[in-house]
Amino acid sequence: MRIAIDAMGGDHGPAEAVRAAAVISRTEQSPSLLLVGDRDLLGHELQLVEHDHDKIAIQHAAQVIEMHDSPGEAIAAKPDASVIVAARAVAGREADALVSCGNTGALLIASGRLIGRIEGVRRAALAAVIPTETRRGEKQDPFALMLDVGATLDVDASDLVAFAVMGHAYAARIGRNPRPRVALLANGSEPHKGSAAIVEAHQLLASRRDLDFIGNIEGVDIPAGIADVIVTGGFVGNVVLKMLEGVSATVMRLARYAYRTKLTWKIGLWMLASGIRRLKQFTDWQQYGGAPILGLNQVCIKAHGRSRERAIGNAIKVATRAVRTDLVGAIRSGVNKASR
Amino acid sequence: MRIAIDAMGGDHGPAEAVRAAAVISRTEQSPSLLLVGDRDLLGHELQLVEHDHDKIAIQHAAQVIEMHDSPGEAIAAKPDASVIVAARAVAGREADALVSCGNTGALLIASGRLIGRIEGVRRAALAAVIPTETRRGEKQDPFALMLDVGATLDVDASDLVAFAVMGHAYAARIGRNPRPRVALLANGSEPHKGSAAIVEAHQLLASRRDLDFIGNIEGVDIPAGIADVIVTGGFVGNVVLKMLEGVSATVMRLARYAYRTKLTWKIGLWMLASGIRRLKQFTDWQQYGGAPILGLNQVCIKAHGRSRERAIGNAIKVATRAVRTDLVGAIRSGVNKASR
Repeated sequence: MRIAIDAMGGDHGPAEAVRAAAVISRTEQSPSLLLVGDRDLLGHELQLVEHDHDKIAIQHAAQVIEMHDSPGEAIAAKPDASVIVAARAVAGREADALVSCGNTGALLIASGRLIGRIEGVRRAALAAVIPTETRRGEKQDPFALMLDVGATLDVDASDLVAFAVMGHAYAARIGRNPRPRVALLANGSEPHKGSAAIVEAHQLLASRRDLDFIGNIEGVDIPAGIADVIVTGGFVGNVVLKMLEGVSATVMRLARYAYRTKLTWKIGLWMLASGIRRLKQFTDWQQYGGAPILGLNQVCIKAHGRSRERAIGNAIKVATRAVRTDLVGAIRSGVNKASR
Repeated sequence: MRIAIDAMGGDHGPAEAVRAAAVISRTEQSPSLLLVGDRDLLGHELQLVEHDHDKIAIQHAAQVIEMHDSPGEAIAAKPDASVIVAARAVAGREADALVSCGNTGALLIASGRLIGRIEGVRRAALAAVIPTETRRGEKQDPFALMLDVGATLDVDASDLVAFAVMGHAYAARIGRNPRPRVALLANGSEPHKGSAAIVEAHQLLASRRDLDFIGNIEGVDIPAGIADVIVTGGFVGNVVLKMLEGVSATVMRLARYAYRTKLTWKIGLWMLASGIRRLKQFTDWQQYGGAPILGLNQVCIKAHGRSRERAIGNAIKVATRAVRTDLVGAIRSGVNKASR
């Protein structure tokens, strides 16, 4: 097995991706890795770190799409961008999966065009993990999976059903949660709540025996962890995901404010420090390994833009596990069941 | 001036509404109050509390719509429900504003049908306050106003523009914030982000000189308080509002967990208690006075279902101020400007 890594374009340059690949290459049963980007730069970085050179190859890409580039324009203007070269390698079966730390929009376009969508999937979905109060699966991790979080703004009922199938397959394999509870996000728990697309998707999902569909959930149920897979359109998913980022930042700022203000608060916070660290670790989903693009013919993982070595390494591990457990095959058969 | 109060149907029975009315009646320059509900029950409760009997009247309503009733069915089945009798009193100009602590859906239907929408307003909006990091307006309060939070699931560009006008008028008068910053909620700050309705509304709002339109905001900007008025469709608004409830509840549960677990955490939390109380007070938007239904021909305020005396009293004060500052007239002229 081989994983292609679009090593350019992250917030911290290619060094982090190279270091992550080097560490992975030294573990047993690790896949081969194809680092895609500037040949000289990657080669130089690779020389600096201990690695298994039988397992790492470099493929040259002359251009880079930066984080601030407009995705559509950049894809057109930079045909030799690392994300395009890497996606082409995966599409041509030179590699089995794609991991990128670059521009999300460019990755969505390049992977959609070159790797292509599974037959019966009208729109791909970007999924993200969300910290909750509940622990789940073999690893007892506190994350629910939400999709779509921004790939597809307007969805119809069949898109939502496909997202449910895709999220279920991913949570079962990567979250190691054999029966993930799947829910639709709506403005009320009753089956008639939500847009016409949600109401129709509810009916379609309720009739499926292969999914543990628990019905509609409301916003209040997200942090409580009522569902393991939260299905919604990309607009709502994106707003919710970014609001959670904002809430965490607000709590941190308020804590800092308290720290400066009163001596008793300062001491109180100091005594709570280990608890706050545990909470932070618990909710630090950026370390979780990245956001999968689901619905494509091959595995594709977006490592977070602020990904450092550990997060990129986790994204490579997730991609490896997704290939080994045949995530794409599971989605393909689930979606075909949906459209029958 | 007279405020009609649908006194039945709250989570705590009519006693809380009667007590709130009694306290208000004893303040100078308070409006007259019309308590609507079971005559005997309200009369009995009123006898128990000190009040200005020149300022309080009771109007009988033989039926009650309960919190768990399905709004549409209940409105049809209970023509003498307190919310209908109260809305009819306002529509017939026996009162200038409506305050209800009952079923939100029933209030939306009854007020829409009987009081009616302002000409040029296609859909009414339910607005809610959201706690943020920023303080604003004369009262330096930490709340932003978000609308719609559930009255209208699917919105077009002109609905969003009307919501912006309505939210601006309300924030200027009730939040006493003369230049509230108005924003559209989207999945990115650029003007081309969001659904077609959002993109078109962005263009329409950008050309208006009477609103301080700051463009699109993302989820991350909500708790930070970048905007004073957040304009969105009812589906997204409802999910966001309910998620904030869930996040607060989660933080509280985690705090309780810490409290039980370790002695140092326990002492640390005890030392932080005054800070946590301040934070709680700061974010306790349920005490803020209720959610206005905007876009109707007369003022209509929904007091929170869990409203107790103080919250109902605040809702009455908000309704009074909305009438005195001619909120409805301001919305009417703003909407007409929009449609020209």
